[in-house]
Amino acid sequence: MRVPEELLEVLRQENKFIIASHINPEGDALGSSIALCLALKSIGKEAHVFNTDGVPYLYQFLPSMQLIKTSLDGLPTWQYCLVLVDCNEPDRAGIEDYRFKLNIVVDHHLTRKSFGDVKWIEPESAATGLMIYHIIKDLGIKIDRDMAENLYTAISIDTGTFRYDNTTSEVLRVAAELVDLGADPARVAIRLYESWTYNRFKLLLEMLNTMELIKIKDIKVAFTHITLDMFRQTDTTQADTENFSNFPRMIDEVEVSVMFRQTDDDAWKASMRGKGAVNLALVAASLGGGGHRNAAGFKAEGSLEDLKARLIKSIEDNINQ
Amino acid sequence: MRVPEELLEVLRQENKFIIASHINPEGDALGSSIALCLALKSIGKEAHVFNTDGVPYLYQFLPSMQLIKTSLDGLPTWQYCLVLVDCNEPDRAGIEDYRFKLNIVVDHHLTRKSFGDVKWIEPESAATGLMIYHIIKDLGIKIDRDMAENLYTAISIDTGTFRYDNTTSEVLRVAAELVDLGADPARVAIRLYESWTYNRFKLLLEMLNTMELIKIKDIKVAFTHITLDMFRQTDTTQADTENFSNFPRMIDEVEVSVMFRQTDDDAWKASMRGKGAVNLALVAASLGGGGHRNAAGFKAEGSLEDLKARLIKSIEDNINQ
Repeated sequence: MRVPEELLEVLRQENKFIIASHINPEGDALGSSIALCLALKSIGKEAHVFNTDGVPYLYQFLPSMQLIKTSLDGLPTWQYCLVLVDCNEPDRAGIEDYRFKLNIVVDHHLTRKSFGDVKWIEPESAATGLMIYHIIKDLGIKIDRDMAENLYTAISIDTGTFRYDNTTSEVLRVAAELVDLGADPARVAIRLYESWTYNRFKLLLEMLNTMELIKIKDIKVAFTHITLDMFRQTDTTQADTENFSNFPRMIDEVEVSVMFRQTDDDAWKASMRGKGAVNLALVAASLGGGGHRNAAGFKAEGSLEDLKARLIKSIEDNINQ
Repeated sequence: MRVPEELLEVLRQENKFIIASHINPEGDALGSSIALCLALKSIGKEAHVFNTDGVPYLYQFLPSMQLIKTSLDGLPTWQYCLVLVDCNEPDRAGIEDYRFKLNIVVDHHLTRKSFGDVKWIEPESAATGLMIYHIIKDLGIKIDRDMAENLYTAISIDTGTFRYDNTTSEVLRVAAELVDLGADPARVAIRLYESWTYNRFKLLLEMLNTMELIKIKDIKVAFTHITLDMFRQTDTTQADTENFSNFPRMIDEVEVSVMFRQTDDDAWKASMRGKGAVNLALVAASLGGGGHRNAAGFKAEGSLEDLKARLIKSIEDNINQ
């Protein structure tokens, strides 16, 4: 991985920066933003971090997270260089109505639009945090404990803490260096994976207790659901279900996991997670939703039984597509 | 971490080895054993791996796992050097009735007995696999892909794949090197975390459904249990419970998770996992067991209620120790 010289040059030459990341931010967006801001500040630059949604509960442990502003009001943004991280279109960050002196993009997602005066897009990088690490190193900035923990969190979340297939030896080597510089792997892991509320845990159990495995052609699909009653009984909300649909994937024979959650008397949202054999993007599209091959979803009205029947039909049509 | 010269000398001088590890083996016991066996064979030694319980379903993916024998019949053991790994007492490995030429012990658990002619005990080491890595390196042996994946699995399982507080920068750096040498982090993670049988998943659910949170002084302890009936109903075995006691740790307020599993009508095994506030090694020791500060266990006879009462008393005594 090589940081473009043009990008380093701009970061060295310019003095005022606004770092922005996508709506619904997760650890890579937030950790990358905060680390870069701290680094630029440490060499005397003026730097701000903006995220329209602020810092979700899960990430309130990030050191220096109070740097994150949810408004750009009062800042003459046209005097600042934008650094858009972990996304590459201004509307993804809610900044499409602002004008900046220069637009810089640092991201590991593929681009569709041609936004940006100075861009570094590295789809092979496991995390934007890894790219920010290289930028900070190449600028000759000393990584302090706060930067290290933010970068470690960024890399951690985007690799499933070194479990996904983007976990290269470089990822592990950079992680090791960040630990030497003060990142605390256990603290980060506890905050990311072991800080559930008891109610959320009870909701997960309720959901998993509804599981049925249905064979569709030659594959097994795990169906689970959460009713409004279950939300009420556990005093939880829709937001508590994030990531729930992944759990049934633990089972070897489960090729697709589908979780329905009730949003109103006759309304449901479905989240689907797969392991490759079914193109869930097509399944979702056939039911009015969207997503990727292995992670997609849709909304629908009707009874759970009807909904399930329609979904089974669509999965049948999209096996091995 | 420094391998004792005496140990290296014995491994260099001697030519016939039997490597043994504890009953109910997990990834560290198996991965360490297999890697050491492959390494010794690669420099022309005769080496055998013995485990009285063989390789559980979960670990059948380990490269070269077919090396593991479940019997020493026919081997004139008195002509062989024993290398006891990941435990330090012969009865833990079911070899107390055999006699060996020399007894070597390599382990990261604290010893209670003085077994062994040549011992390397390193309680600070995250995994026995990390110690075996250093032995192989210090012997000047080239680590091949099979050794790398076994060592990576050993280190992975004992650090919760880099989530526990034994995850040092050295652990991550060694993991990075093992990836360079052929270990596949995603393959190992899928096999460790996403290859459950449906029955095992059902057993986990049954166990989690028994959960009660009990407040002991100012900390919360999650108690769960698995009865012989639950094993029968889900057609599972004791080996299927590996790692189960970690699940309740997901809950923020849970400081200690204790899982009891019934091994006979009136006999139980307890696995405890903590987050730091209670020294579980002391708790386990007080009840005749052993382990580390945040991961320990013991066996006991009696009713579940009695057992729980004794444990609660011991936890009370060992908070903030």
